[in-house]
Amino acid sequence: MAGNTFGNAFRLMTFGESHGAGLGGIIDGCPAGLEVDMELIHRDLARRRPGQSAIVTQRKEPDQVAFYSGIFEGKTTGSPIGFLIQNTNQKSKDYSHIADSYRPSHADYTFDQKYGFRDYRGGGRSSARETVSRVVAGAIAKQLISPVTIQGYVSQVGEVRLEKPYNELDLSQAENNPVRCPDPETAEQMEALIREVRKEGDTIGGVVSCVIKNVPKGLGDPVFDKLHARLGHAMLSINAVKGFEYGSGFEGVTMKGSAHNDAFNSDGSTKTNFSGGVQGGISNGMDIYFNVAFKPVATLIQSYDTIDKEGKEVTVQGKGRHDPCVVPRAVAIVEAMAALVIADAQLLNRLARK
Amino acid sequence: MAGNTFGNAFRLMTFGESHGAGLGGIIDGCPAGLEVDMELIHRDLARRRPGQSAIVTQRKEPDQVAFYSGIFEGKTTGSPIGFLIQNTNQKSKDYSHIADSYRPSHADYTFDQKYGFRDYRGGGRSSARETVSRVVAGAIAKQLISPVTIQGYVSQVGEVRLEKPYNELDLSQAENNPVRCPDPETAEQMEALIREVRKEGDTIGGVVSCVIKNVPKGLGDPVFDKLHARLGHAMLSINAVKGFEYGSGFEGVTMKGSAHNDAFNSDGSTKTNFSGGVQGGISNGMDIYFNVAFKPVATLIQSYDTIDKEGKEVTVQGKGRHDPCVVPRAVAIVEAMAALVIADAQLLNRLARK
Amino acid sequence: MAGNTFGNAFRLMTFGESHGAGLGGIIDGCPAGLEVDMELIHRDLARRRPGQSAIVTQRKEPDQVAFYSGIFEGKTTGSPIGFLIQNTNQKSKDYSHIADSYRPSHADYTFDQKYGFRDYRGGGRSSARETVSRVVAGAIAKQLISPVTIQGYVSQVGEVRLEKPYNELDLSQAENNPVRCPDPETAEQMEALIREVRKEGDTIGGVVSCVIKNVPKGLGDPVFDKLHARLGHAMLSINAVKGFEYGSGFEGVTMKGSAHNDAFNSDGSTKTNFSGGVQGGISNGMDIYFNVAFKPVATLIQSYDTIDKEGKEVTVQGKGRHDPCVVPRAVAIVEAMAALVIADAQLLNRLARK
Amino acid sequence: MAGNTFGNAFRLMTFGESHGAGLGGIIDGCPAGLEVDMELIHRDLARRRPGQSAIVTQRKEPDQVAFYSGIFEGKTTGSPIGFLIQNTNQKSKDYSHIADSYRPSHADYTFDQKYGFRDYRGGGRSSARETVSRVVAGAIAKQLISPVTIQGYVSQVGEVRLEKPYNELDLSQAENNPVRCPDPETAEQMEALIREVRKEGDTIGGVVSCVIKNVPKGLGDPVFDKLHARLGHAMLSINAVKGFEYGSGFEGVTMKGSAHNDAFNSDGSTKTNFSGGVQGGISNGMDIYFNVAFKPVATLIQSYDTIDKEGKEVTVQGKGRHDPCVVPRAVAIVEAMAALVIADAQLLNRLARK
Repeated sequence: MAGNTFGNAFRLMTFGESHGAGLGGIIDGCPAGLEVDMELIHRDLARRRPGQSAIVTQRKEPDQVAFYSGIFEGKTTGSPIGFLIQNTNQKSKDYSHIADSYRPSHADYTFDQKYGFRDYRGGGRSSARETVSRVVAGAIAKQLISPVTIQGYVSQVGEVRLEKPYNELDLSQAENNPVRCPDPETAEQMEALIREVRKEGDTIGGVVSCVIKNVPKGLGDPVFDKLHARLGHAMLSINAVKGFEYGSGFEGVTMKGSAHNDAFNSDGSTKTNFSGGVQGGISNGMDIYFNVAFKPVATLIQSYDTIDKEGKEVTVQGKGRHDPCVVPRAVAIVEAMAALVIADAQLLNRLARK
Repeated sequence: MAGNTFGNAFRLMTFGESHGAGLGGIIDGCPAGLEVDMELIHRDLARRRPGQSAIVTQRKEPDQVAFYSGIFEGKTTGSPIGFLIQNTNQKSKDYSHIADSYRPSHADYTFDQKYGFRDYRGGGRSSARETVSRVVAGAIAKQLISPVTIQGYVSQVGEVRLEKPYNELDLSQAENNPVRCPDPETAEQMEALIREVRKEGDTIGGVVSCVIKNVPKGLGDPVFDKLHARLGHAMLSINAVKGFEYGSGFEGVTMKGSAHNDAFNSDGSTKTNFSGGVQGGISNGMDIYFNVAFKPVATLIQSYDTIDKEGKEVTVQGKGRHDPCVVPRAVAIVEAMAALVIADAQLLNRLARK
Repeated sequence: MAGNTFGNAFRLMTFGESHGAGLGGIIDGCPAGLEVDMELIHRDLARRRPGQSAIVTQRKEPDQVAFYSGIFEGKTTGSPIGFLIQNTNQKSKDYSHIADSYRPSHADYTFDQKYGFRDYRGGGRSSARETVSRVVAGAIAKQLISPVTIQGYVSQVGEVRLEKPYNELDLSQAENNPVRCPDPETAEQMEALIREVRKEGDTIGGVVSCVIKNVPKGLGDPVFDKLHARLGHAMLSINAVKGFEYGSGFEGVTMKGSAHNDAFNSDGSTKTNFSGGVQGGISNGMDIYFNVAFKPVATLIQSYDTIDKEGKEVTVQGKGRHDPCVVPRAVAIVEAMAALVIADAQLLNRLARK
Repeated sequence: MAGNTFGNAFRLMTFGESHGAGLGGIIDGCPAGLEVDMELIHRDLARRRPGQSAIVTQRKEPDQVAFYSGIFEGKTTGSPIGFLIQNTNQKSKDYSHIADSYRPSHADYTFDQKYGFRDYRGGGRSSARETVSRVVAGAIAKQLISPVTIQGYVSQVGEVRLEKPYNELDLSQAENNPVRCPDPETAEQMEALIREVRKEGDTIGGVVSCVIKNVPKGLGDPVFDKLHARLGHAMLSINAVKGFEYGSGFEGVTMKGSAHNDAFNSDGSTKTNFSGGVQGGISNGMDIYFNVAFKPVATLIQSYDTIDKEGKEVTVQGKGRHDPCVVPRAVAIVEAMAALVIADAQLLNRLARK
């Protein structure tokens, strides 16, 4: 109801604000008997972590996750998995400039409108820091759905765009550079652009692409919970996301049906894959691929004009350690949300037949 | 769970297949005391109806809706609203060509994979005929949320694209032509393209754009159920949709934050609206606008090669009366789903404060 | 949210008022591939039907159910099953005496308080007529969960009480008399009592007992959705129910743990069954048995003093054709709700292990 | 789905096992702006706490709760409230006798059947220790619903039964003795019985009664989520509960309708209250009162025969510090669950009218 839960059979509820005592969540519905590899969780947390490279925010958040329940002798028990990430770097900051004024294109104004007041410290509940809990849950979901693999990468930063489709790229290269673009040359251009933007105290948008392989057939439901509708919901729930497309996406609208239809091979696979691995809302076993558009983040290290709570115009000096471009860190979040969707759909699919 | 329900506080559950005895649904959670104008329901049904113009399918579906409950002496009672649309045009058709083979880029193959068999007649549950129930519920939701208005229109068919943004158009013109494009000249080009495509027995994709005005502030929730995430889920659940973007959308990724941030006026409104009326997942009172990409529909009136259930290659002759381009009829469906999202969010917003 | 849905994986949403155009529901989540025996549905409807014997209401409701979707060539398809029972006996009745005054211990007053007004005809949404939809869904659930069997019977009417526990009775006798009490002698006393009460225009309470056999182990969840909590919820949602107990129930509170604990046999079954087939909220494979207390129905064929909407005292003459005691007809409803709970739990149990 | 969540609008999800690192939960949907009195939370925790008197278990659990989110400057923010109770007393215990064998009438056997294995330490997830999280959430719910008051008390221990109805008792006396029975004389008899039972290493059942006053009219929904059905579900989800009745309850079945019907006063209140404050599932503003039956707890400090995982018979010596009778400590849990139900219903009731 209040929108802090995601999923049906495999369900995550999160809590926590940017500068509260801690963040965490409960994973409910993870089946019993999964051996949990903590290393894989730490790896994904590291991919999302601030300070991991020169082109992301230099905040220090160690993001140590502690598990309190639901795992016994290394295996999930079927009971809810409660976890907590203590906030350790949130001490004596001065937020008075935010407390009294509304930062443009942030959630400051809308929170006040909805709730009457807000925890203004670092964006409170609307901070992208909340996604740390999604990455924890996603890393467990990934282990549950194995051998399904989920691979995200950066395909666009500003105007710098990776033109090749995913199946002409060596996606294993994505983690070899700080931008997480699998094409080294394009990655360099992207990195250069991000550095330039950061120097100006400005920010820039980008696109995260994602590919899901080894998908079982039959995931998703035919009407309101089409697999791609759940994926779209998941992606659009990530901070700063403005758009989602899968398969042929927005470009597909220019095609004719005779060119867009995916002809079958005799084994049920298709010769092309404009469908993006989903037909009628249900996976057909082909690769699922999609794009997620991220706007330039709103936090600038510049001075800007805005209003305070009384509507008076004020000038504010942006400060702190923020991301000039979120997409390199967002890759891990996109993957985590995709893993939650697939894990959920895979469990629900057990209910389809008598 | 099985994905036939949409919404939380204002909830629609639908049933029905393309060629079963009837389709319908239950609206649960519509507050008591709403005077229902049946004319507005009929009007939206007419906008979605086949056979309404020369450029849509010539099937005849009268789409008479009967209400069985929840409305008493012209007003909603707070009890669930059950409604039924009898199928009347589904008689002695021959579906043997579909029963045994899989139409490319339809849900035939995936249904068989998921459920073991399927109601093959006219696409069964995966038919877009299911959306008739959404339009009924949406037309009631529109009345509940008034004076919020929701206006959809066609902004692209194939390569023919309306370049002007919504606020430079006279949207009241959208219903003046069969394409539902508010610019008469572009509408003519679109119509010409659709006629051409139909002549070939082919289909073409398109984009439906939608604008929501007079939105109260505070709708939506900050984390998983951001208002735009719910809108995206809703739109992606419509048949043939491949993408969703709101506000600056995919183009916003090329912008810098300093240009993209929406500066405030002293009354809390913003000078620009790249945010698309939603900040941090919560409405800020500005117009909400978004685009929905529809692929070319898969049903062609051409002969095509495919496989049958045993994986043998077969050649099938497409026939029947199908839409060369769905977007003119989809406008009513997009609006209906948007109305369901807004009605739901508006009710949930009553719970935000003590 | 508005409480017209029951169940999670196997889900029923109902609509319809006593004197509206019709009642019905949607069953969502019934797995594909179940062969539906319509005869079993009709049989249970007949067991709930008014007019079935001399000791129940003489209203005539044929209760013909029409299925609109989700069943194809005799088998469930995995799509939602929509069904409708037209109201045919609701013509030119005069309800003015109810419209303006509040019948004691009915929902008249509380509906007006909650919704501002109400559909007063025959109790509207709060009429037990709504349970016809539960019986339809329950009859399908029974087929899904077979070989699990659910057997209800009347164990008490007023002070006339069946003293023997269920396992000392021949439950197959329950359907041999109109009271549905498996002990012929007690049944006669009950019937005599009901006839006497009816003569006075009065009503009397009773208890329905129910036994579930062949229950798979593992149904139910350990915390909030304990199997017996779901059963209790289900039973307490039936009109006129005032209490629920399972296993040793209220009498168990007087026992010591050493006597109450159920010792194991070597095959995991237990020597006694005070647990009632559920331990820690999860079925252990033993019989589940429980009691449901029904109050005397509030509708009397007597004159009574009450108030009207303005709070003025008025005298009203009760009239019509009502049940002097609901338990004979309630047996089918109790069974139906139990079937919904078991079907749901059985599906959910598929999710427990990796 | 996995049953670790309770409530709709005011929602609690819990996690944690008896002997894991900690227990806790997330309260989602608590409206913004509630000033939280921590003292009231501590007070209810103290009422549930082990070791509080000579007649309850002498385990030491300090039950310090830490809040991590959702409360800012003393007020709820509308964001989820995450909280944690560290387990501190769970060190070097030896559970080998439980690990390999099944304690009768516990959840040991059923957990193994459902999940394939279990966290056997102290009952794991099925331990009543989980209810500590319910008491935390309930204490916040009580503050939200004020001036509604919820007062539980012990009305029966074994055969010792408080014969007076709640409105002839001075309920303020309930907290004056360790049994929590408001009648001092009966309390003494109950205490004596519990001491005797404890001496034998045995246990005894009991009944907790509860009264809710100042209830707004209109809470609850007319069909599946009748207010008393939600209350019953809540109570039956508490460990060791075997039955629930409200208003006239099981005794009401012996009454005639003419005696049972609650006649109106001119202000809408009723002269009697057999309805128990709920009519047609909706509160009418009168006191809500109900009884909850608790079985004798299964843990004995005696030796007993049982089986191990292989089905071999073994003799086990019960040991440790357990409750001879749970009802004194259960009073706080019953109240907490009632508070969750009322808070939820009160929020949902905001949605009833246009």
